[in-house]
Amino acid sequence: MASQQNNKPQTAAESITPRATDYGQWYLDIVKRAELADHSSVRGCMVIKPHGYAIWEKLQRELDDRFKATGHVNAYFPLFIPLSLLAKEEEHAAGFAKECAVVTHYRLKSMDGKVDVDPESKLEEPLVVRPTSETIIWEQYRNWIQSYRDLPLLINQWANVVRWEMRTRLFLRTAEFLWQEGHTAHATEAEAREEVARMLEVYADVAENVMGVPVIRGHKTEGERFAGALDTQSIEGMMQDGKALQMGTSHYLGQNFAKSADVKFLNQNGQLEYVYATSWGVSTRLVGALIMTHSDDNGLILPPKLAPIHIAIVPIYKTPDEQARTTAEAQAVAAELRQQGWAVKVDDREGLQPGAKYYEWERKGVPIRIEIGPRDLEKGSLCVVRRFVIEQPGETEPELRRRKKQFLPRAEAIAQMPALMDTLQKELLERARIRRDQRTRIIDTLEDYEAFFREGGGFAWVHWAGTGADEDTMAKRYETSIRCIPFADQIPEAGRGPGACILTGQPSPQRVLMAKAY
Amino acid sequence: MASQQNNKPQTAAESITPRATDYGQWYLDIVKRAELADHSSVRGCMVIKPHGYAIWEKLQRELDDRFKATGHVNAYFPLFIPLSLLAKEEEHAAGFAKECAVVTHYRLKSMDGKVDVDPESKLEEPLVVRPTSETIIWEQYRNWIQSYRDLPLLINQWANVVRWEMRTRLFLRTAEFLWQEGHTAHATEAEAREEVARMLEVYADVAENVMGVPVIRGHKTEGERFAGALDTQSIEGMMQDGKALQMGTSHYLGQNFAKSADVKFLNQNGQLEYVYATSWGVSTRLVGALIMTHSDDNGLILPPKLAPIHIAIVPIYKTPDEQARTTAEAQAVAAELRQQGWAVKVDDREGLQPGAKYYEWERKGVPIRIEIGPRDLEKGSLCVVRRFVIEQPGETEPELRRRKKQFLPRAEAIAQMPALMDTLQKELLERARIRRDQRTRIIDTLEDYEAFFREGGGFAWVHWAGTGADEDTMAKRYETSIRCIPFADQIPEAGRGPGACILTGQPSPQRVLMAKAY
Repeated sequence: MASQQNNKPQTAAESITPRATDYGQWYLDIVKRAELADHSSVRGCMVIKPHGYAIWEKLQRELDDRFKATGHVNAYFPLFIPLSLLAKEEEHAAGFAKECAVVTHYRLKSMDGKVDVDPESKLEEPLVVRPTSETIIWEQYRNWIQSYRDLPLLINQWANVVRWEMRTRLFLRTAEFLWQEGHTAHATEAEAREEVARMLEVYADVAENVMGVPVIRGHKTEGERFAGALDTQSIEGMMQDGKALQMGTSHYLGQNFAKSADVKFLNQNGQLEYVYATSWGVSTRLVGALIMTHSDDNGLILPPKLAPIHIAIVPIYKTPDEQARTTAEAQAVAAELRQQGWAVKVDDREGLQPGAKYYEWERKGVPIRIEIGPRDLEKGSLCVVRRFVIEQPGETEPELRRRKKQFLPRAEAIAQMPALMDTLQKELLERARIRRDQRTRIIDTLEDYEAFFREGGGFAWVHWAGTGADEDTMAKRYETSIRCIPFADQIPEAGRGPGACILTGQPSPQRVLMAKAY
Repeated sequence: MASQQNNKPQTAAESITPRATDYGQWYLDIVKRAELADHSSVRGCMVIKPHGYAIWEKLQRELDDRFKATGHVNAYFPLFIPLSLLAKEEEHAAGFAKECAVVTHYRLKSMDGKVDVDPESKLEEPLVVRPTSETIIWEQYRNWIQSYRDLPLLINQWANVVRWEMRTRLFLRTAEFLWQEGHTAHATEAEAREEVARMLEVYADVAENVMGVPVIRGHKTEGERFAGALDTQSIEGMMQDGKALQMGTSHYLGQNFAKSADVKFLNQNGQLEYVYATSWGVSTRLVGALIMTHSDDNGLILPPKLAPIHIAIVPIYKTPDEQARTTAEAQAVAAELRQQGWAVKVDDREGLQPGAKYYEWERKGVPIRIEIGPRDLEKGSLCVVRRFVIEQPGETEPELRRRKKQFLPRAEAIAQMPALMDTLQKELLERARIRRDQRTRIIDTLEDYEAFFREGGGFAWVHWAGTGADEDTMAKRYETSIRCIPFADQIPEAGRGPGACILTGQPSPQRVLMAKAY
């Protein structure tokens, strides 16, 4: 007997603001109610709670496996960068200058009964807390690279970085965040550019096939490039409010950092040449992307590949005898599912109604819930509830709820679990793609453009041949920006080919992706 | 035909100073020649190179698996601690005050064509770069803990920390280092003390059964306790120069941090009570312990459980035909060994003599080398070379070398690999234990004590009933300190029971462990 109990939150502390009411508050509620992160007592810095960190660990593993499969190794470089070193590559320094946390002293002192910074411990040279590590890493590479035989050098670092932000939002933008940064050195431009493309595709693969977030791949405009890069490529996802989120970037740095750090190598012709560089990174921001892409008004929704718990089993009972029997069955089913490799939680907590348990696991994004009541025992069946289905137009909440739930013979329910998880993983991507496509338009006039963004907006494919100043105009008028100049195959077929710039009317070789953005 | 080629380093850059000549330089040479770490351009901060980082990653996995198996989860807390927060627990703040890196500004500015700290970006409150995270974590726990149902809270963090050190040594003592710090909250003192013991044993297990480093478990003296702890327990290993290295610590913090952060819980009797705390940590220092315990004058020696590469296979040839056949066989053998789960490197680099290859893999600590020459192909045999054997008294270098090498029928060599790796893993621990015991004495007079340390020293088991000032006396006279007050079962049987203090003659209930230390 699968319960029909109330599925609503039990207390105000568990309630989630609906997306339609206040999208920003909805996001914050999900982060808090799913226990993913908390604000800390340090301005702009967040605490990643165990459930949020477990998701990040799974993402790390997926990424790290792919980095290693493409020949990269991990290493670790210092947290601090001497100011003079950061300043060496001018454009780079200028790009990060406004958000650098700076260490100036190295000791505290008790003065007048109060602990304070010891003024006598002032550093000769201030140390910048790394906002990114190009400068400190290339300083090291000078000692590691002598000849073409030392290349390519394919190194990744998992680390924390700090960029002092005035407006922060949990996971999406915080002063300190966790990330990985790849820093590679190559003998030729062609090889470095191949690396940039390869790693962007690794990110796109993880976004789509692990996170279930479809992305557009393309180049950033000159104004949006990484400080010091000749080309910045990115993957852009669409969140449920129609805004774009930059999820990962891969940079071709040319010889800029090699020149400022004086890293030359002896090429195969016996000539000294500056090394070609790339860097690429994704961060804990991806957890924010995950939340904003899939979650609903009941809480977090996780793809099976990133779920710390895959299946929650809730025994349902009224009498002690029923409790003993349904709990034993829950444990037996759990054991069989663990054999398949799933992380299974048997929720046998006492003093909590099944409805409250259902709600909690929904809130935390567990992909599958199994309910086991006395009638299920008699019938030899299990009630298997999916966390989501792809919504049909005009479908009501009770209809949706019915479609999520299946009563299956026990053996069948267990045997089908791998296929069901696979379905959830794929349908999550499909659902996100449907939503994105519903909010994507090919637009040729400013009137249509304005109307589109007035009515909620999304991704606009428009022709563009404007200047940086023209981009500013679009930003001021519509709060939109060029998210990327996409690779040709990323543009919808109906929008391919040349045309006229939506603002200036000048000829444009292909459309660009415009949107509001995080 | 396994080669008899020269096994000596090819260039000065590869040479390693013998231990007997200069132990400190030997250590540094191993770190550099095995490509484990480098000094950086930031004072006191090191760069962990890919080979060193791969060892750390394996150690992390071994530790993390054990933390999770004992019910802990990972989370992440901010890098920065507001000065006032750090200062809350007085003893703690005093303990770390002299080694705190402090962030005072958050922006750079180009002034007179030079990038410098923007004086207008001064922070209202300075931020300390975490030397350890008790204060920032307990600040958060206040919001997470209300009742006994929220306990125990068993959280671990993998992070970087900074302790400004004047004298640094790669891995052993650096200004920034990587570590894990467990921070747990409990409803009772008994439960918290159990946790302290449990995690110390997890560390001892990893030290002995993963790293192959035998350790003594015990309590620190009052003067050596963690700042803010009521009890600090540690594991102490002996390095090859006879000095002790503290490899991990586990602290019982009582209610100190709960009081300073005001973390109370409603106990089962409905009363508000302060929470009981523990913390425990190990760091990248363990890589230093690994090096100093096992390595020899030829380079690093790694236990199979921590080796990034388990087996290096070197084909030996003179003609192109021999090259093709031995290399094909090397690949075939590698494929079979990878099936067993080993990380195998086939060293088919051209232009390098086999001897140079042997030396390189020895230097990097690869546990097993397989040499395949044309005669081995004819015979259907493999030459299997262990990285080390347990030395016999009076044995010469050529004798040692012979004992490391075995010619085995191909199938047998492959089939025996798991057993051989298991042997290496165990013998590394046994070898370290033999060395330690050879340099361990039960000592009852200051004359014997002085002679022991004059002649090289090691671990001295002595009776002790002195004061803190008496400890200082021993430190000044002999440069030794009490490494721990050991758990009773850690004392050699011949040294158990009460006695008289070696310095004061006062009655002592049991012996303590004294040594010089890192």
